[in-house]
Amino acid sequence: MSKREQEIIAAAAEIFKEKGYQAATTRDIAAAVGIQQATLYYYVSSKEELLYLVVREPMMRLYVQMEEIVKASVPTRRKIELDIQAHLAAFDDSYPHMFVFIQELPNVVTALPDRLGEFPGRYQHLWEDILQQGMTTAELRTDLDPVATTLMILGMCNWMSRWYRKGGRLDTTTLAKQYASAVLDGIVARPGRAPC
Amino acid sequence: MSKREQEIIAAAAEIFKEKGYQAATTRDIAAAVGIQQATLYYYVSSKEELLYLVVREPMMRLYVQMEEIVKASVPTRRKIELDIQAHLAAFDDSYPHMFVFIQELPNVVTALPDRLGEFPGRYQHLWEDILQQGMTTAELRTDLDPVATTLMILGMCNWMSRWYRKGGRLDTTTLAKQYASAVLDGIVARPGRAPC
Repeated sequence: MSKREQEIIAAAAEIFKEKGYQAATTRDIAAAVGIQQATLYYYVSSKEELLYLVVREPMMRLYVQMEEIVKASVPTRRKIELDIQAHLAAFDDSYPHMFVFIQELPNVVTALPDRLGEFPGRYQHLWEDILQQGMTTAELRTDLDPVATTLMILGMCNWMSRWYRKGGRLDTTTLAKQYASAVLDGIVARPGRAPC
Repeated sequence: MSKREQEIIAAAAEIFKEKGYQAATTRDIAAAVGIQQATLYYYVSSKEELLYLVVREPMMRLYVQMEEIVKASVPTRRKIELDIQAHLAAFDDSYPHMFVFIQELPNVVTALPDRLGEFPGRYQHLWEDILQQGMTTAELRTDLDPVATTLMILGMCNWMSRWYRKGGRLDTTTLAKQYASAVLDGIVARPGRAPC
């Protein structure tokens, strides 16, 4: 990818975050890069393609990490810790791209090329598989719905896109540790539990 | 409030949800109600005021419920259960208003009249207070950060705006029970725990 293309994608991520995808225009993005709108169309064919290019890398990276974790020979508890760590680390590696991905998810699904359109749903299914496996092996409670629990975990991770700032009071490693510990063991005090 | 005003607010909630606040126009909203844009401005002064009117009721209701729960003489565990129940029930009572509130939170904060601008932040602080109290009384773990834990709980509740549909497989009472139980006690299987 050329330096100019990288600049365009970075500007698109910023503009989509600030204005929202539907209100943003390719004219805004061209202006942010300092080029004509017509020049922008030399690099990309549409605003939709730009949305795809903004989310592609973090989406695929997270999905591949998740696939490896699902297959790993480690207890369910560890898989959940690793998954949360990978998800939160994406906010360090890919911001504001991850913000746009999460905020604009319905538009992202539409903007993805056919072969990739199922990826956000497949990511959720990998989470459901892990929880389901953990229930089957009696590592996890069986009185919780695996789909609702998946969406609970995704919600707490995804909401971080709204408030997390790199370099803030708590880093993603600490947050992932605390979130995984809270989800796995609960926030209620119990004697004998090792501190987080 | 007149029937026409109610129609306008309901239409605004739908349009803000579908197009996003920044891309939506008062022309779209007037068209959805079947009135002229000029007529709309007889009822409201701006798109910003419409956003305020869309979120006002669910926001204030949830805040008042939360204030009562904070003051109640019940264990922290029960407060957290009641808070989650109130938050999730709002998706039944006020959809798509709650969706717009959550999706457009930064715009909502700007659109609120001065006297109400702090309410979303104060709601979060009430949550932090409950967790902090529970840590002080040793009901909750003290190795988790109360602000990060608040944002974790808000994230899992708020994300429901994306996937919950009234009349679906799980209702908000069941979901609130499961979410509160998961957050309080964790999702890991433990012998002797009562099922959710």
